[in-house]
Amino acid sequence: MEITDIAGVCCNGIKEEKLGLGMVKCSGSVAGVFTQNKIKAAPVIVCRENISDGYIRGIIVNSGNANAYTGDQGVRDAEEMCRMAAKLFGCDAKDIAVASTGVIGRRLDMEWIRAKAPEVFAGLGNTTIHADKFAKSIVTTDRFVKKASSEKVGIAAVAKGAGMIAPNMATMLCFIFTSAKFDSGDLYEMLKNAVDASFNRLTVDGDTSTNDTVLLVSTGRERVDAGLFEDELERVCYSLAKQMAMDGEGATRVFEVFVEGAASDEDAYRIARTVADSLLVKTAIFGRDPNWGRIVAAVGYSEADVDERITLSFENEVSRVLLVDRGKPVGSEEDARELLEKSKEFTIRIELEKGSGEGFAIGCDLGYDYVKLNAEYTT
Amino acid sequence: MEITDIAGVCCNGIKEEKLGLGMVKCSGSVAGVFTQNKIKAAPVIVCRENISDGYIRGIIVNSGNANAYTGDQGVRDAEEMCRMAAKLFGCDAKDIAVASTGVIGRRLDMEWIRAKAPEVFAGLGNTTIHADKFAKSIVTTDRFVKKASSEKVGIAAVAKGAGMIAPNMATMLCFIFTSAKFDSGDLYEMLKNAVDASFNRLTVDGDTSTNDTVLLVSTGRERVDAGLFEDELERVCYSLAKQMAMDGEGATRVFEVFVEGAASDEDAYRIARTVADSLLVKTAIFGRDPNWGRIVAAVGYSEADVDERITLSFENEVSRVLLVDRGKPVGSEEDARELLEKSKEFTIRIELEKGSGEGFAIGCDLGYDYVKLNAEYTT
Repeated sequence: MEITDIAGVCCNGIKEEKLGLGMVKCSGSVAGVFTQNKIKAAPVIVCRENISDGYIRGIIVNSGNANAYTGDQGVRDAEEMCRMAAKLFGCDAKDIAVASTGVIGRRLDMEWIRAKAPEVFAGLGNTTIHADKFAKSIVTTDRFVKKASSEKVGIAAVAKGAGMIAPNMATMLCFIFTSAKFDSGDLYEMLKNAVDASFNRLTVDGDTSTNDTVLLVSTGRERVDAGLFEDELERVCYSLAKQMAMDGEGATRVFEVFVEGAASDEDAYRIARTVADSLLVKTAIFGRDPNWGRIVAAVGYSEADVDERITLSFENEVSRVLLVDRGKPVGSEEDARELLEKSKEFTIRIELEKGSGEGFAIGCDLGYDYVKLNAEYTT
Repeated sequence: MEITDIAGVCCNGIKEEKLGLGMVKCSGSVAGVFTQNKIKAAPVIVCRENISDGYIRGIIVNSGNANAYTGDQGVRDAEEMCRMAAKLFGCDAKDIAVASTGVIGRRLDMEWIRAKAPEVFAGLGNTTIHADKFAKSIVTTDRFVKKASSEKVGIAAVAKGAGMIAPNMATMLCFIFTSAKFDSGDLYEMLKNAVDASFNRLTVDGDTSTNDTVLLVSTGRERVDAGLFEDELERVCYSLAKQMAMDGEGATRVFEVFVEGAASDEDAYRIARTVADSLLVKTAIFGRDPNWGRIVAAVGYSEADVDERITLSFENEVSRVLLVDRGKPVGSEEDARELLEKSKEFTIRIELEKGSGEGFAIGCDLGYDYVKLNAEYTT
């Protein structure tokens, strides 16, 4: 389903060259999870404040300029964006959520935003076309729009994110809407858990942005089982995280690193993250090279409790190729190479013999286009 | 000066396609610093043991195969390399230091090593040609050989290292020789300090190898002031670290990130490392883009105590371009871009107002060739 299929949600957006502006009309309870970067963009500061009473009437988002590291002026500009939307929506500016993504350290082009806001507002609607326009207005270097939904519990979400993904969500904007009725406190708990099991597992390049924002808005009155809702919310977020990994600037492969048998869950996650973050592992996968030596080396420098008794395999939905069995290479590189060539998504499974700790991380390969996009996207 | 100018040191090496073998005849006291990766290559285990009495008679090194993650067989092979050298040198196998670099997880081609050892030994000598041959025999993906020396105190060193450099030295082999007389305990203290102020500051891609080895051998009897020797040793190591950064796979720019005014020296180093490690910063520099927003974002996610009052400048030997003054962008991007275009080496200076902590890290940019080398070098 589309976000426009959710009770009372209308949206629209425009994109002109590098600049975009989008709006969503959505009255209801809200919860948000934001960047953990100590340098927070102005919209993050303003949005956090505006959603603190657990209620919003609408969202305004711009892309192309992050309005980050812009000082007091940046905060005034983010507040003006809220006032603009509030005036159009006929509500209080404190009931508007705001988000930005793009270049850091430049003042917003407020003239452009002021000029375009009425046009975006006039086009608000609830068809797939409107949802697509909104989705497109919030992207920057993304190659495709990310969407996920659950018919079962009435969730529809759209996200933007391709670079600076990690370690704790990165520019990354995600707007999730539901017709299910929950108050803001419940929404927050469920969102936090879902984000932790999805976006926070994702690592594209180890950088964390100043602007990350995930909002969950409940606009409807449907009663839904909380446990089922939580599962579906996590599934939606996990799907978006994988889509972001696949759009990880220039990525051609997405992989989950799953670690078991670690001394603790923390150790397992530390190992998974270290492997998923390793540039040598990422470039090897780009080269379709089952270079398990680089994986073992990354396990070794993960700072977790490890030794050489590692069992390592590559898996996709249909097969499993064992590469190292309790510390002994088994010489199956050709099979592993074939799996890498055939599978856009696969799992690197690492088994230790240290305990019962489990954890995972999501990563993507790193190729020429990552360099191209990031050397050329700029100031 | 060349390593062959150091009292009693003869060397030689051969390189055939991807495989190399080198030997050094050098009797004297020795100290070594090794990888901190928990998965240690066999030669590291054997070398550490063999130098533990503080004395060696020679060194044998192979390149193209790391002899890492090769289990007991790997240890037996490393020991056999020592015996081979010992037999040729006429000494005990326990007096031979051994090192390897290359692909992980494959058994050494012992036939090739056995066949070549006598040839390398027969060619041992002490001219520049011999030093060059040895230097070339130990490299893998390096674009050039790294050398540094001090006439003042009689130090000559040769190193290999271009990938997997960081955080605590990575495959990276470095052999330092001196005519100055120090016992192994003193050598160890001085070497540890020098490595910490040089190789450990270097970050090319965040990966740490299984094989890192730095040896310092004192073969002569010259009395040299310890303080002066320490300074010169540090200078030699710092020069080699910068050369490695410049050879950071595909690098075109080397930079030092210098942080001052941090809450503590630890915080300053943490910030410097985070900035030097940031892929977004590295790719921006590759694009000659003074994208200070990415630097500020990295400072923000460094987990150090920071706020927005950051002063940021780019400096080379002749000029300084202030980009951000106590939190305010000063709009000098064009000047900074020019500095980036002109300077193969430059400094990113970050000043905080949190205290008197200082620290630095050395980094390099990341471009297409990094991907090319690492996607194609392999298994």
